[in-house]
Amino acid sequence: MKEYFPNTGKIEYSGDRFKKGPCFRQYNAGQTVGGKTMEEHLKFSMAFWHTMGYGGSDPFGADTMVRPWQNGSSPMKIAEEKVYAAFEIMQKLGIRYFCFHDRDIAPEGNTLAETNKNLDSIVKIIKKMMSDTGIRLLWGTANLFTNPRFMHGAATSCNADVFAYAAAQVKKAMEVTTELGGAGYVFWGGREGYETLLNTDMQLELDNMAFFLQMAADYAKEIGFEGQLLIEPKPKEPTKHQYDFDVASALAFLKSYGLERDFKFNIESNHATLAGHTFQHDLRFARINEMLGSVDANQGDMLLGWDTDQFPTDIYSTTFCMLEILEMGGFKKGGLNFDAKVRRASYRPDDIFYAHIAGMDSFAKGLKAAWKIMEDGVLKDFISKKYESYSRGIGKKISGKETDFKSLEKYALGPGTIDNPSGRQEYLESILNEYIFTAE
Amino acid sequence: MKEYFPNTGKIEYSGDRFKKGPCFRQYNAGQTVGGKTMEEHLKFSMAFWHTMGYGGSDPFGADTMVRPWQNGSSPMKIAEEKVYAAFEIMQKLGIRYFCFHDRDIAPEGNTLAETNKNLDSIVKIIKKMMSDTGIRLLWGTANLFTNPRFMHGAATSCNADVFAYAAAQVKKAMEVTTELGGAGYVFWGGREGYETLLNTDMQLELDNMAFFLQMAADYAKEIGFEGQLLIEPKPKEPTKHQYDFDVASALAFLKSYGLERDFKFNIESNHATLAGHTFQHDLRFARINEMLGSVDANQGDMLLGWDTDQFPTDIYSTTFCMLEILEMGGFKKGGLNFDAKVRRASYRPDDIFYAHIAGMDSFAKGLKAAWKIMEDGVLKDFISKKYESYSRGIGKKISGKETDFKSLEKYALGPGTIDNPSGRQEYLESILNEYIFTAE
Amino acid sequence: MKEYFPNTGKIEYSGDRFKKGPCFRQYNAGQTVGGKTMEEHLKFSMAFWHTMGYGGSDPFGADTMVRPWQNGSSPMKIAEEKVYAAFEIMQKLGIRYFCFHDRDIAPEGNTLAETNKNLDSIVKIIKKMMSDTGIRLLWGTANLFTNPRFMHGAATSCNADVFAYAAAQVKKAMEVTTELGGAGYVFWGGREGYETLLNTDMQLELDNMAFFLQMAADYAKEIGFEGQLLIEPKPKEPTKHQYDFDVASALAFLKSYGLERDFKFNIESNHATLAGHTFQHDLRFARINEMLGSVDANQGDMLLGWDTDQFPTDIYSTTFCMLEILEMGGFKKGGLNFDAKVRRASYRPDDIFYAHIAGMDSFAKGLKAAWKIMEDGVLKDFISKKYESYSRGIGKKISGKETDFKSLEKYALGPGTIDNPSGRQEYLESILNEYIFTAE
Amino acid sequence: MKEYFPNTGKIEYSGDRFKKGPCFRQYNAGQTVGGKTMEEHLKFSMAFWHTMGYGGSDPFGADTMVRPWQNGSSPMKIAEEKVYAAFEIMQKLGIRYFCFHDRDIAPEGNTLAETNKNLDSIVKIIKKMMSDTGIRLLWGTANLFTNPRFMHGAATSCNADVFAYAAAQVKKAMEVTTELGGAGYVFWGGREGYETLLNTDMQLELDNMAFFLQMAADYAKEIGFEGQLLIEPKPKEPTKHQYDFDVASALAFLKSYGLERDFKFNIESNHATLAGHTFQHDLRFARINEMLGSVDANQGDMLLGWDTDQFPTDIYSTTFCMLEILEMGGFKKGGLNFDAKVRRASYRPDDIFYAHIAGMDSFAKGLKAAWKIMEDGVLKDFISKKYESYSRGIGKKISGKETDFKSLEKYALGPGTIDNPSGRQEYLESILNEYIFTAE
Repeated sequence: MKEYFPNTGKIEYSGDRFKKGPCFRQYNAGQTVGGKTMEEHLKFSMAFWHTMGYGGSDPFGADTMVRPWQNGSSPMKIAEEKVYAAFEIMQKLGIRYFCFHDRDIAPEGNTLAETNKNLDSIVKIIKKMMSDTGIRLLWGTANLFTNPRFMHGAATSCNADVFAYAAAQVKKAMEVTTELGGAGYVFWGGREGYETLLNTDMQLELDNMAFFLQMAADYAKEIGFEGQLLIEPKPKEPTKHQYDFDVASALAFLKSYGLERDFKFNIESNHATLAGHTFQHDLRFARINEMLGSVDANQGDMLLGWDTDQFPTDIYSTTFCMLEILEMGGFKKGGLNFDAKVRRASYRPDDIFYAHIAGMDSFAKGLKAAWKIMEDGVLKDFISKKYESYSRGIGKKISGKETDFKSLEKYALGPGTIDNPSGRQEYLESILNEYIFTAE
Repeated sequence: MKEYFPNTGKIEYSGDRFKKGPCFRQYNAGQTVGGKTMEEHLKFSMAFWHTMGYGGSDPFGADTMVRPWQNGSSPMKIAEEKVYAAFEIMQKLGIRYFCFHDRDIAPEGNTLAETNKNLDSIVKIIKKMMSDTGIRLLWGTANLFTNPRFMHGAATSCNADVFAYAAAQVKKAMEVTTELGGAGYVFWGGREGYETLLNTDMQLELDNMAFFLQMAADYAKEIGFEGQLLIEPKPKEPTKHQYDFDVASALAFLKSYGLERDFKFNIESNHATLAGHTFQHDLRFARINEMLGSVDANQGDMLLGWDTDQFPTDIYSTTFCMLEILEMGGFKKGGLNFDAKVRRASYRPDDIFYAHIAGMDSFAKGLKAAWKIMEDGVLKDFISKKYESYSRGIGKKISGKETDFKSLEKYALGPGTIDNPSGRQEYLESILNEYIFTAE
Repeated sequence: MKEYFPNTGKIEYSGDRFKKGPCFRQYNAGQTVGGKTMEEHLKFSMAFWHTMGYGGSDPFGADTMVRPWQNGSSPMKIAEEKVYAAFEIMQKLGIRYFCFHDRDIAPEGNTLAETNKNLDSIVKIIKKMMSDTGIRLLWGTANLFTNPRFMHGAATSCNADVFAYAAAQVKKAMEVTTELGGAGYVFWGGREGYETLLNTDMQLELDNMAFFLQMAADYAKEIGFEGQLLIEPKPKEPTKHQYDFDVASALAFLKSYGLERDFKFNIESNHATLAGHTFQHDLRFARINEMLGSVDANQGDMLLGWDTDQFPTDIYSTTFCMLEILEMGGFKKGGLNFDAKVRRASYRPDDIFYAHIAGMDSFAKGLKAAWKIMEDGVLKDFISKKYESYSRGIGKKISGKETDFKSLEKYALGPGTIDNPSGRQEYLESILNEYIFTAE
Repeated sequence: MKEYFPNTGKIEYSGDRFKKGPCFRQYNAGQTVGGKTMEEHLKFSMAFWHTMGYGGSDPFGADTMVRPWQNGSSPMKIAEEKVYAAFEIMQKLGIRYFCFHDRDIAPEGNTLAETNKNLDSIVKIIKKMMSDTGIRLLWGTANLFTNPRFMHGAATSCNADVFAYAAAQVKKAMEVTTELGGAGYVFWGGREGYETLLNTDMQLELDNMAFFLQMAADYAKEIGFEGQLLIEPKPKEPTKHQYDFDVASALAFLKSYGLERDFKFNIESNHATLAGHTFQHDLRFARINEMLGSVDANQGDMLLGWDTDQFPTDIYSTTFCMLEILEMGGFKKGGLNFDAKVRRASYRPDDIFYAHIAGMDSFAKGLKAAWKIMEDGVLKDFISKKYESYSRGIGKKISGKETDFKSLEKYALGPGTIDNPSGRQEYLESILNEYIFTAE
């Protein structure tokens, strides 16, 4: 097996924050934070499509990156080498999980049958590598957006043949994910939406999408898939308007069709911000609805209107994310998948290492800050005091749902005056900064 | 009773499109469109707060408008004159409905009891005017956002005393709305949301909001209110993040708490666009979920990030709106409320007439275009053909939910090739233009 | 010469607005509007890259469109057939101009010398076709963004070799444009900007960009190019921040380097809106600075944050555009270039015709409305009256710059009271609608 | 003189990062950073309008804050007490500068003459307090946006009487600023722009605005004002489109009218982001054009479309700002003005202290990080290496402007191959984080 990065060894934690070259400055896998190691808290995953497949193209430019594993003699040979390179990268970075679309790992053939055969061959190789390295599959998914057949959607296509094709593809992808012991299976409906209502039957499309997901949930049970089914919301791009706009939209959909018990959410930072929310908002909203399954750990550019899928380096974003995950008690079947690509101009192979390090360090620092905030109870105490009126008197009756409009009116007509606490946002932001700066 | 606009008579329809002065150029109340008069189709409503109350202030400027009805000797006298002026304006414009917040029509007193008394006095006057003119109440609502006591929200305040006060206020507003025979009652949660999650207990706030709405629904039944309860979504402003972000978010909320049968939506154009949707999207989504109750007919500025509440003059927007309403079979208990204010520099009293005329004409034209589009079936036929694969073969089985992943895979592995229809967006946009230009 | 659309004849004007199939419903080339024919007013141009080259790909999907002219036996043969197909399309649509990038019309070779040779061969063919058909070149340009060598920019690259390469490429493209008698030459700096200031020397990049443009202007004179040099501003995409953000930014740049006499602007609707302006704003600002050279006639989606390059069908946008062009006295060396692509799902060859028809009809209607508005003087009269205070008394002194702060203070301390006119925005929007609806 | 905050002493630096109560955790006035004290680097200024005048209102809500200094017996008495309270706040916070609008410090009278008299009285008191405390005026300005007379603009009003009034007001404000030894005078044109082009003469408005600024510059010289004249750009709000959209737009304007030598820019973070730029972009662009005069230190919410004027707590933003200021060699006549208001729900008087502390600490940390980055040369070295090709060979000729298109083509046709450096964005972001975390 060829070594693709002979000059790069295993990335180590360095106590020196300003050491040159690829090393961790915050992420120390074995360091204990609140009784668990960083590695246990931060279930990092490599995204096969970006790390192994992205070549640097954008809507106005061709690929900039020539990856050494792409020099194979045939598409299948290239696919095989890509697997070896992927596992080398993960091992050197100490990343214990990965995610993939069916079409990332194996090329399409001339027929669906041939495509499936290609997939099976590569899955066998991946399985071997997983067994050799202990690296695990966070989740699998099917690519239902690249091929032109999906121009009008997959489960929401106006074309029943496309619906059938998509079903067959998901069926196979679920089998493969099960075969590899995936902890999850993701549905991202990049083309499930519309371009213009002038030509769209929204009702039929939503009904079809629900039936599709129902069949998927049924089939997961049928084949004994033990992972979590996950919906990944995104408001738009490529489609002008996607039905899974955000967590709340997708939750409304699931509840409308009685599917809410079969799915949780895979929440992506950049998708949340494109929908007009903070990353933390969608995490929180999913968490309190017990629907937070897994996380796509990246970041967007708040001044750009498209998905930039940058590696996460904003310390506020990683801290808030880890706060929600810690509050949830950590991931059950989820993890932190780097759905992130190096910038087009970070085109050298070693940028792959620098970029993942940047993301892992930012999350490690965020974990340390979040843990300290939780441990000290600084936010919890503030909030608890702010809402304390609900623990006594009329507030307790409200909490207990033991009152009604008439009783409340009687109370409000009474002699009491209203005294609000201060929100103290500036103070809290200031304290948050200190937790971030000092967490070790 | 003083006449406030002695120089303005009843606004009439003019056959001459370029006639100077205030007149209708498209809206002809008695003209029949598809078997109903324009007046029956277009249940226009005047918004008391904007038309009677807006003085032209903005975050950087003081009021520009001096309204003649504001010269009264006391707050209550002013409130009374405002009613007379309102009915004069509605009568002259031929507007048959109005909407109000409790605090628009009567001033707050020193205590809630006194405030309620003020409200009762003015309601009596309004009732008399309604009876005299035949003008009706589209919906009432309570203002739970202006007073500083609502700084942290009303039903979602961290302060139980505020929750109680809000309940008392809504109770009274519902009674008053019932008294006036309102066709609806609206909940717009302008402060129901949060500024920062650093100081927010989202779970408690959502639970409280649900309990509040439950009590409201119960009380509506108790007092025999026959109108429709309506939620009005808005994503943000004044609050950084509002829980009723858009129709889908609010629907998820209602379903989570089992409230979806008691409420429908009041959809505002400018709120939909602030949420990242087209107006038509939110109308359509509500309609197919049988949740479209009423409409706030205004428009925003797509380059500005706040609610501009402009009078609706974009012909595409009014045409799409009327398409959804016609598809629904027209309003049951809803209408087209001009939640719109004249621009700050359109500060002369007669701009009130010009602005309402602009909105009414734009909706009249939109109605005529939408009706013709429906009658000709031009979009329906196109869509029907585009989706025809679901009416036969495998498509029919999908529609009927009589298949599964295994059968679909078998089909997809078969010999068929996939042939997609064209979306033809440009052609449809072009045809839409002709319907708009030619509809009479 | 093969006919690529044997079933489509010359597109004709139809008096019947609802005639099926491809025909003009508003654009009647020979119809006179204000003494000039529509064809003279509306110098439509076909964009080679979109119409001939766009295959339907987007960041998440592969090409959907198979164009018949792409079946050639070699890249050069395909390039030749593409020219024939382009002229067939233009002739059938009655489009009299076209625009191209160097790389649209001829493939890159292994060396720059070979690439230039390829270009020369195709230019010869184009020249022949132009001569045969009377179709003319609106403008040419060089593609300095697709090839990976431009990853850090072209004139603003950190790499001097890239700067040199870009200079050589522009030199050749200018020669070719001159050879074909182009009325203009465009600079769109898609990669002239930065991704992050962390790695950027903005000062050096701006200095280099200015020197590059200076050399271009010098070279244009040297070779006797008689067309107009044009800058095309765009705020972002693909680059995070482009130096030619909008007309004002580019004007500041030109003035800082003394280049403002050598360039005018090519203004694109979708670029203006991405910069936070209306299309009309950038047109107006350029016009009153005598910098409005040409127009890229398309439209964006106001809810999407990227360049959608849609065919222009919004009647407000085309009317406002034509108003500015008419006010300028029509184009000198500019035109209306359809920098627009069919939607990815409008993938059938005949959608090319439907889309251009949609754009041409929308501009034809916009021209008719704009002309009538100008002829009636409806806006001009309103504005003239609104600003009339500058034609007398203190206002006249201000206009004539014959006063100073001291005199103005003396006036302001005087007895006069301030009486503002109403802005009347709603009324004007309403009147605008009627002009649009009725213009024939 | 009444003490308004008897329970709050001088705010001190605390070595303990988690000490409760109001204290500095990063800002240590006397600590030396690169040879200057923090106090010398960070010329903090209090904004009179926000800190002393903002009552908590927003477009949907009334004031929440009752300030003790507002209990005076007359408007003039209140204005006087406000001055005392302001100086107490500044002294306790250790803030050495302040800024004001004319109307912030003294109430309008019935006539301009009376208003000017009010202003003179308060200015006398302020002058005394400045002398007693050593606190200085960063800049003064005139409020040309609140009063309804400015509904159509001030210098760009359609009404010459308003233009004259504005001139008189600015004249007086400049005199007062001179009297108080202000280091600057600011022009923020909140109403200098338009709502709709349907009723706007953009050419006349721009000409008038230029004449107004010309007169202001002349008058400044006439009265011996030694401070810097500053333009403060903002893209929109309250006006739909403001002429001083961003630094580049305002620079184009100044250059078009030959005013660029008389003005520099006062750059506000929240205004830059509303214009689609990062704060750092506008700072950098102004700096390299030698137009960076002063800074309004606040922050916006990237998900909200309006000016939130929050206290600056984002450490990235403050670090980038300090980097530009340090690169410039520090402020000459500028400073860091907290154009920031406490959140509406941070309504308690002590939130004023917490908020300013949050801002001061964030800038202190940013200063320390920026200084270390500069001292280590980490970014400078990276950039220098990235652009090194311009220091030799063909690159050197380009830098020296000693080449032309022909020579460059010859070079490009040569045998060389192009080898680009990596942009390394992820690595640089990661390193930036470490500088922020560790700077002391």
